[in-house]
Amino acid sequence: FEYDGPSMKTEVPGPRSKELAKQLGEMQNVGAINFFCNYEESRGNYLVDVDGNRMLDVYTQISSIPIGYSHPSLMKVLSNPNNMSAFVNRPALGILPPENFPEKLAESLLSVSPSGMSRAQTMACGSCSNENAFKSMFIWYRNKERGHNNPSEEDIRSCMINQSPGCPNLSILSFMGGFHGRTMGCLATTHSKAIHKLDVPSFDWPIAPFPKLKYPLEEFTRENAQEEARCLEEVEDLIVQWRQKGRPVAGIIIEPIQAEGGDNHASPDFFRKLRNIAHKHGCAFHVDEVQTGCGATGKFWAHEHWGMEDPADIVSFSKKMLTGGFYHKDEFQADKYPNLLSSARGVGTFCAVDIRDEATRNSILIKARDKGVLLGGCGDRSIRFRPALVFKEYHVHIFLNVFNDVLAEYN
Amino acid sequence: FEYDGPSMKTEVPGPRSKELAKQLGEMQNVGAINFFCNYEESRGNYLVDVDGNRMLDVYTQISSIPIGYSHPSLMKVLSNPNNMSAFVNRPALGILPPENFPEKLAESLLSVSPSGMSRAQTMACGSCSNENAFKSMFIWYRNKERGHNNPSEEDIRSCMINQSPGCPNLSILSFMGGFHGRTMGCLATTHSKAIHKLDVPSFDWPIAPFPKLKYPLEEFTRENAQEEARCLEEVEDLIVQWRQKGRPVAGIIIEPIQAEGGDNHASPDFFRKLRNIAHKHGCAFHVDEVQTGCGATGKFWAHEHWGMEDPADIVSFSKKMLTGGFYHKDEFQADKYPNLLSSARGVGTFCAVDIRDEATRNSILIKARDKGVLLGGCGDRSIRFRPALVFKEYHVHIFLNVFNDVLAEYN
Repeated sequence: FEYDGPSMKTEVPGPRSKELAKQLGEMQNVGAINFFCNYEESRGNYLVDVDGNRMLDVYTQISSIPIGYSHPSLMKVLSNPNNMSAFVNRPALGILPPENFPEKLAESLLSVSPSGMSRAQTMACGSCSNENAFKSMFIWYRNKERGHNNPSEEDIRSCMINQSPGCPNLSILSFMGGFHGRTMGCLATTHSKAIHKLDVPSFDWPIAPFPKLKYPLEEFTRENAQEEARCLEEVEDLIVQWRQKGRPVAGIIIEPIQAEGGDNHASPDFFRKLRNIAHKHGCAFHVDEVQTGCGATGKFWAHEHWGMEDPADIVSFSKKMLTGGFYHKDEFQADKYPNLLSSARGVGTFCAVDIRDEATRNSILIKARDKGVLLGGCGDRSIRFRPALVFKEYHVHIFLNVFNDVLAEYN
Repeated sequence: FEYDGPSMKTEVPGPRSKELAKQLGEMQNVGAINFFCNYEESRGNYLVDVDGNRMLDVYTQISSIPIGYSHPSLMKVLSNPNNMSAFVNRPALGILPPENFPEKLAESLLSVSPSGMSRAQTMACGSCSNENAFKSMFIWYRNKERGHNNPSEEDIRSCMINQSPGCPNLSILSFMGGFHGRTMGCLATTHSKAIHKLDVPSFDWPIAPFPKLKYPLEEFTRENAQEEARCLEEVEDLIVQWRQKGRPVAGIIIEPIQAEGGDNHASPDFFRKLRNIAHKHGCAFHVDEVQTGCGATGKFWAHEHWGMEDPADIVSFSKKMLTGGFYHKDEFQADKYPNLLSSARGVGTFCAVDIRDEATRNSILIKARDKGVLLGGCGDRSIRFRPALVFKEYHVHIFLNVFNDVLAEYN
């Protein structure tokens, strides 16, 4: 299946890559492109480019290819007609999951869940995984502050206009050299390269130094221990400072090995002490395994090298895992709130109508569904219609028959 | 291909859905789940659930299914072996795009690009599309302020610690009732439901009222015109206020129809005047077509109803488009900065080594590549090794032969 070695035919990028870069340059910025690839011909550990060069790949799409290119098992999964509908039908997993979702989740993600974690939330990419993990930590922290899970009227009112207490002045502590993604929440915890952050507004969140170890480790035992102690002391100082200035640290995020920032390591002892500091100060401990997870360090999760029973509250993943998401403990769950015609409006297939009140709207949605028509709500008391572009006149008739039947019950 | 009508067999959720919800509840929060679906049996406008109920779907996965369930053309695209490698091999599009990427981009996204926009950036979801569009607007605005594209040393230094001027105090103006996603940047512009925002820190960004029109429109012509004028006046006031308090508005984001917020419409005249206000105050104008785009309103883009030659600077999309991303004008391009052994370190397959300086590191990466070995850089002067989990001992030998050859050139 695999090739027997590298084979270089041209300089890289070769003439075909250069030609394609010129074409793509008309549509996108191409400043970061290395060369163009022939993924169909890429196999196992070899990446083949469009000029026929074959390279042994020790970088694997920034650490994202778990078992090599074009692996027959993955090709088989993808060509299985039973799996195809997941790609074509784009299920909104949070509201309308497919039948096999619990089983697949148990068989795949939950079968490799980190110690102490029985719950997993899937996401589309590493940045979204971290963003949503942050949100879980903030909600968890606020519920702890409130002593219960019921937000006040003031919380609800103020959050709609971005103000505290509803949007609280909480922070996430991160480390210099860390990389956690490029969306704005993640970016506030990312400190590896200026180009990622420049010109983007950010949050006033604390940033601790990550240990700079000297190698070989056995020659610098004392220096490295001192360096780690210095960084941990700084972490505690920052937690206290930010609490004092009214922006308490809700969570600490760290990579088991800082990857983008320079493959910076710290000892298991450092991480164990950091985890204890999080406990001591009531901060959630979020281990970002987007790049280190899925076997990359010889254990399934890099944090397993720390030898702890309770190493983290949140573990995020993506890349090699072939889906994004995060594992979390039971207590890190967002709260849920239990939740005739006017203003008919619409453009094309994008239509809506208001119902006299929320309760009626909700009951209409359910009654229509029980008669076989699926509608959505929006706003306080509106119903929205979002048919597909293949919704024809006879579908409209079916819809109107059901909808009129339902509405008749309210007269 | 399609069914001939709805067919309801049980209450919804039926017994099988309830059983699955209980199973999934052990692994995830299931508070928002309606029922479980049989996507393999779902066709065209009909969604089939796991209890055999068949519903005419006028909601389509929150407006995300362009041409109905299990459409044969999409199934055909997916089962084409030539397309399979894109899913299995996860190309990092920004650095190693596949050969057909320029052609596919031109044939698909660019063939339907909004007026005045010749460039498109793809993203994995709607939230990431908006987050990255925001970043483009901030960079564009800062370059305009600087008068050139070269950040200062102070910009570069301060951005690494989340401080201005590198992370500037800029803002995005949004509208009450708007929904632009749930990552933290998007969330600061989202104001539709408290549950999306509650307990998450946010930015002090201006929020304008969106017109509340009265229906039927023809009976409330004067009132509605007054209402739109009131909202536009408020937009200008907010832009001035935020400039005065040192958080200038870099961009305005708006949906052509506020969807999640209640299907709230405004007139083409309102949007034309808003666009002019953006011009007048030097703010970028970002039209979020994540839910309205791809034909939903009878035109390909909802903003085409406004009848303008230059309706927007940025147009973001996702959902029905089956990929996320944003279109933008030429000038909204992020700048690119032109970017022997010690400290060997590693855990499992996750290894790195430092090179004496950045220039040497970079030239080693290129020379290794020219000999057929693909490596990655990280940090200032490190090389990172991220082989796949099928990297065997004989791959290591191939690697070491090449690497040693390259290093020999530097002695």
